[in-house]
Order: sequence, then structure tokens, then C-alpha cells
Amino acid sequence: MAQQHLDPPTDSAAGTGPRAAPAPLDEGGAPIGDALAGYLRAQATEFLRSLRQHRETGAAASGAGESGAAARSLRRSARRISGSLHTFRPLLDADWSEGVRPELAWLSGTLAREHACAARLERLLGALNRLSGTAALPVQAGRAPAPKGNLTVGAAKAGALLDRQLTLARTRAHSAALQALGSSRFHAVADSVALLASEVPLAPSADSADLRPLAAAAQDRLTDAVTALPLVAAGHPYNAEALVHGLSADTAPQPQDAPWHQVRLLLRLHRYASEVLHHGECPVDVRLLGAGQALNRHRDAAEAASAAASAARTPRIAPATAYALGVLHADQRHEVEAARFAFQQTWQKEAVRTP
Amino acid sequence: MAQQHLDPPTDSAAGTGPRAAPAPLDEGGAPIGDALAGYLRAQATEFLRSLRQHRETGAAASGAGESGAAARSLRRSARRISGSLHTFRPLLDADWSEGVRPELAWLSGTLAREHACAARLERLLGALNRLSGTAALPVQAGRAPAPKGNLTVGAAKAGALLDRQLTLARTRAHSAALQALGSSRFHAVADSVALLASEVPLAPSADSADLRPLAAAAQDRLTDAVTALPLVAAGHPYNAEALVHGLSADTAPQPQDAPWHQVRLLLRLHRYASEVLHHGECPVDVRLLGAGQALNRHRDAAEAASAAASAARTPRIAPATAYALGVLHADQRHEVEAARFAFQQTWQKEAVRTP
Repeated sequence: MAQQHLDPPTDSAAGTGPRAAPAPLDEGGAPIGDALAGYLRAQATEFLRSLRQHRETGAAASGAGESGAAARSLRRSARRISGSLHTFRPLLDADWSEGVRPELAWLSGTLAREHACAARLERLLGALNRLSGTAALPVQAGRAPAPKGNLTVGAAKAGALLDRQLTLARTRAHSAALQALGSSRFHAVADSVALLASEVPLAPSADSADLRPLAAAAQDRLTDAVTALPLVAAGHPYNAEALVHGLSADTAPQPQDAPWHQVRLLLRLHRYASEVLHHGECPVDVRLLGAGQALNRHRDAAEAASAAASAARTPRIAPATAYALGVLHADQRHEVEAARFAFQQTWQKEAVRTP
Repeated sequence: MAQQHLDPPTDSAAGTGPRAAPAPLDEGGAPIGDALAGYLRAQATEFLRSLRQHRETGAAASGAGESGAAARSLRRSARRISGSLHTFRPLLDADWSEGVRPELAWLSGTLAREHACAARLERLLGALNRLSGTAALPVQAGRAPAPKGNLTVGAAKAGALLDRQLTLARTRAHSAALQALGSSRFHAVADSVALLASEVPLAPSADSADLRPLAAAAQDRLTDAVTALPLVAAGHPYNAEALVHGLSADTAPQPQDAPWHQVRLLLRLHRYASEVLHHGECPVDVRLLGAGQALNRHRDAAEAASAAASAARTPRIAPATAYALGVLHADQRHEVEAARFAFQQTWQKEAVRTP
């Protein structure tokens, strides 16, 4: 199993002298509470840096360029802080950490929405292009170019409808993000993170506590959730499971997707816990990386399928538009099924040494 | 590789005495022209028996029951006669065989249509039920039954539309079959087959010719056609190839399907040639059987997908109906992809001894 070693973060909290910063390992070499404090300080510093950058580059650019990169970086550290507060909860001041976690979740959720709308639109328009197949159509001897018929009009109209709906959603998400960043609620979060950057509110005697049992518990929660997935079915290609309720009257997100989304979150928490343990020299586990990518694809395809179904409920659309949206919905649900298959294949591979 | 031996046909032409019927093998044990004659006589006898049975049971019952079984048996022997005339063409009176082959193809095509419409409707309604998922929906704690929304209405309307269209097509096919069976064109075919049942018009000196080179040529045509298929792509699950032109403006049957349909026909010709060679003791090759089933499923799903797309072009349908037909079309195109995967998997298996 190939492994790479990431460069240590430049603002690593692993001290060089015994006094400047406490050593993050105990005498037996176990990562201890101080390593957690170092990780949280580094993420908080990154959060504040991204926030400063986001303000400097101006928030007018919607999701693209430097402003977009700063927003992504902000979300990235918010997720890591929030996740670590969750996994290592017993080692932190309970009141403080219970107070700040939902606020960080609110922030990263609000900031994520604009990017998600843009990515969803890109995915759906890409799929419509692929399904129309005009670009990829091989020229065949004696075959005149196909006349533009009903269905191509349908695909074009479906694309325009999705563009309109998702661009509107994106604009709203952008305004909501701007509003959030100017709110007093946000300033309270930023103050909490600023505190974290200077002094992590550890629980009494947590600075020398072994981190490994809590990290192992996070891994166990992941393993248990994966065990509960229908992996045998997912491992049989073309099992047609993902589209089973493709025409059901229930417009809520498909209940069959929920356990997979949950594994995606638990996988992320496990990764953050590994980052804490391996602070400065985090091994990249390609198996977990592949599994995470499959679950991201699963989530993206499920949300795109849902957006296509939702667009089809727009009043007064043409039948050809609705037909194209139906094909698109089914296509994305098959992507969901393909992602589950990919996850199963990746997960099956021999587990590499994990901490 | 499991093999079964079929019982010898009761009307086997393999003679018991050296004069009553010529032995079908030459001195070296090779199957010769007489074995072909025996096979054709047996199939012609079966054709005439089925025809008699079809007339007796009455042709009013549309495709079901005894009359349907007789029609299937009639088609079955017509296909075998026609296929054998094609494969062993050089051993038969050229004028006679060139004359009767297209007539047999016309007959089996005409008789097949009614059954195909019924099977297509059943496949599409089954898929709509599966996609609506109401029957299979697991009862979940705290989940009230979903209210009947837009999409379920769409699925129901799509089912009713397909039912109307395919039942009409089936009724027309039934009338056409009845008309065909009463036509002078059919009586000419029946006369030709009656001739075959008593005396097979072999070419001069064909009765002692070795059948194996012509059977091997049929197998080579099959192997070549399979080699030309995109099997590498088909072997990767979820390659999304089958739906590539799902929204293209071209309403003709998908050109990407044609090579697979062609392999299906060549596989059938190969099987009939094997039957001729192994007359009376035909080994069942489970690999070829599986490959044939996958290709039947490929053809059925492709035609069902096409029927759903065609129904979606009905003027003045509701958008919800069109949406359901789009989902259904994509679902059947994924069945096409699944069938290609199944064919690839079956074909990959070690080839068993073939004649």
C-alpha cells in the first residue's frame, strides 16, 4: 500500500525546545493532550489568516479566485477545529467546547453553500452534455448529422432551467455568506477561535492525557458504521439499488443515502483525529483517501439527482424538458450507485496499518 | 465447466439400419451432409406439427396458452431451418435455399412481434413498479406513508400510456400474424417446409461432405464479431457508455447497440450449427448459454428504452408523465449496460471444448 508523507505544516506547534512549547509525546512516545492543543492552535491560526485574506481580497467575487480560496481555507480549518473538539471532547473545557462547536458548524455550513451550488450546476450541465452526446458522436460513413429534434431541445431547456435555478440559489448563498461574515454571531465565533489560537481551554490534567483511546474510539465509530452499510449489495455491479425509489412520491432526500453520508462524516472525523496524532508527519492512507473520494462523489451525485427532480417539479415546463430532467435524475442516481460500488471496492482492499 | 446432455429428439434422423436412413457420420466419425438433412427434416416436421397445433387451438387467444406455445415452437423451428440453410449454404440446392430463407425470416419476424410487444410492456411496467418502490419500501419507525405526489402520478400515467401504446401495437401484431398465416405467401412457405420434411434438396455429393468446416466458419464469424466489441469498456462496471446518447436528437435505434445485436444473431447461428453437428446428443455449453441470455437481455432492454423514449414524444402529455418516461428510459439503458457487463463476464470465463 503506497504511502506518502506530507510536509509538516509550516506553523507546526511541535516545539523545538523543551520550554518554548511542551513536547507533544509522553515518555513512552504516546501523543498527549499537548499535541491536541498544538493542532488546535495551528488550525485556529490558519482560520484567522484565511479570514484576514478573505477580507482583503474582497468578498464580492462569488466563490472564484483568491476570495474563493480563502473561503475554502476558512471552512477547512473550521471543520478541523469542530471535528477535533468533538473527538477529544473529554480533554477540553466542556462549556466552552459545547458552546463553540455548533457555531463553527453553522459557519462552515453557511460558507459551503455557494460553492456547492456552483459545483452542482457544473456536474449537471456536464452530465447533460455527456447525455446529449453530440461532442462525442463518432462520424459514421453515410450518416448525416442528426437534425435537432425534440429531445435535444429538451436537454437545452433542462440545462437553462437548472442554470437559472442553481444560479439563483448560488447568489442567495453568496449573500447569506456575506451577511453571516458581517454578523455579531460570526464575530463571537471569530473571538472564540482567536482565544484558541493563543490558549487552548484544556480540561484539568488533559495536557498529559493519552490521545490514542479517543482517536481509536473515533475509528471504531467509523468501522461500525461501515459494517452497517449494505456492502454486499453495493459490491455487485448494476444492482439497481440507488434508483429504487427514483419515482416514489416521497420528495425528501432518499433515506437509503443517509448511512453513506454518515460514514462520510465519520471518515472525516477519523482523518482529523489521525492528523492530531501524527501532527507534523501525517501518513496519507490511499485507501481512506479513495474511500473518502467515493463518498464525496456519492454525496455530490445524490444532491445533483435531487436538484434535477426538484427542477422537474417547476410548474408549466415543457414535457421534453421534464423528460430530459428524468433522464438526468436517473443518470445521477446511477452515479450514486457507482460511487457505492467504488467505495466497496476501495474498502475491500487490505487495510494498511492505522494508528 | 458443467455440461448437460439433452435427450435425443424423438424424431431423430439418426437411422438404426445402414439402408433405412444413411448413417450421419463418415468412416472417420465426421458428421456429414446426411446429418444436416436429418436435422432439417426434424425441424421441418416440428414446424408442421406446431402449425397444425396452432390451427387446432385457434389463433384467437393472443399469444397466451397453447396457441402461444405453438406459435413459439413454429418460430423456433423456422429460425433453426433458416439458420442452418445459411450456415450450410454450399451443401444445399442454391436456388431453393435462397428462395426459402427470406420467407422463413419474414414468417418468424411476423410471428415474433406480438410476443415482443407483450414482453416489452411487462418489462416496462415491472421497471415502473420497481422505480416507484412502494411495494419494496421498508417500513421505518416514525415515517408516515408518503402522500401521493406529482411523481407517483407521473409513474402511473406513464404506465397507462405505455399500456395503451404497446397493447395497441400488440393487437396490430396479432392481426398481422393471423393475416400472415392465412396468406398465399405463408402457404408457399409451408409447402417449402413440407418438401423439406420429406426430402432435403441437398447439392450434388453434399450428402457425404464434412460439415465441420462450415460449422467452424460460423464459429469464426462469431469470434471475430465478439473481438470487435468494446469488451474492455464493458468490463468496467458503471462505464456510463450505454446512456451516452440518451438525450441525443437522433431517434433511430442507437448505433452503439448494433454490434451487440449482430453478435446475438451470430451466437444463435453458432448454436444451431452445433445442434446439427451433435444431432441427437447436443452438449449444452453453459458459457454460451449465459452469453446468449445476456444478449437477449441487452436486446430487450434496448427496445424497452426505445419504447419509453418513443412514448415521451406523444403530443400533449403531462410533464410528470414525461419525467417518469425519462427516468424509465435511463433505467433501461442502464440495463443495456448491465447486460453488456454480464456478457463480458460470461465470455471471459475459460472457453469449454467447442466442436
